[in-house]
Amino acid sequence: MLKSLDPLLTADLLYVLRAMGHGDDLVLADGNFPSASVAARTVSGTHIHLAGADIVQAAQAILSVYPLDTFVEPAAHRMQVVGEPDTIPPVQQDVQRVVDAAEGRSRAMGSIERMAFYEHAKRAYAVVSTTERRGYGCFIFKKGIILPDGSAA
Amino acid sequence: MLKSLDPLLTADLLYVLRAMGHGDDLVLADGNFPSASVAARTVSGTHIHLAGADIVQAAQAILSVYPLDTFVEPAAHRMQVVGEPDTIPPVQQDVQRVVDAAEGRSRAMGSIERMAFYEHAKRAYAVVSTTERRGYGCFIFKKGIILPDGSAA
Repeated sequence: MLKSLDPLLTADLLYVLRAMGHGDDLVLADGNFPSASVAARTVSGTHIHLAGADIVQAAQAILSVYPLDTFVEPAAHRMQVVGEPDTIPPVQQDVQRVVDAAEGRSRAMGSIERMAFYEHAKRAYAVVSTTERRGYGCFIFKKGIILPDGSAA
Repeated sequence: MLKSLDPLLTADLLYVLRAMGHGDDLVLADGNFPSASVAARTVSGTHIHLAGADIVQAAQAILSVYPLDTFVEPAAHRMQVVGEPDTIPPVQQDVQRVVDAAEGRSRAMGSIERMAFYEHAKRAYAVVSTTERRGYGCFIFKKGIILPDGSAA
């Protein structure tokens, strides 16, 4: 393991997060999402499976090092509940809290209809999946930048 | 780039550092060290070249996340100057300061004769090389552990 880094940030996951650049999208998925097949179509073709982690743990680990884009709003999106586009289930409320905490301010996520989410996800850089049991625990995070002084923007 | 991580910690380098475990050795080398050929014999066969970085910058970046072993002393070694085993040239004094700062206390490096250093290096996990111009800018760092509370030991 490494100093100051969440243990869930494995070698493979750190590789992907560091290889990504400004505007690249990362998919973060629950246990039912078709992670392997979607990942096969992504830019890197990479599927990282954090077996044993739930989506909150995974989001916390990733956002501890991964800056969300500040050039666009929203920079994070959730998958819409089918037929209930305005419903925000508890799993998404939990991840919204992780986003807000990591960013140090409220940054409401956008939402994407399920089938459109799949298409969007295929254009991402990679897919990180978890064993989250709750449905609709699926998100897309757009990467931001680190300024010369080390701060995220 | 990523929050709180030195830009020299590239995707490839982060991968190697995170993949290593307790007691694994990492070679950190200057621009003249036979890094490619030695790396080919290491456990992972990996040679990461930080082209443009000097040895102090590389050591600072690595030790910002990489815990030195506390089960053995010394956990870090320098290559001895040929014929002058007790001479500690400025490049090694510089890296000693980086080690002490990263560890938060004085941890004097051991030294290994040049040919023995090559043999030891071949048993390491990987080699990280730099474009350090000063000779004898070659080191072996043994990896330590992260305790459950997140502190290094």
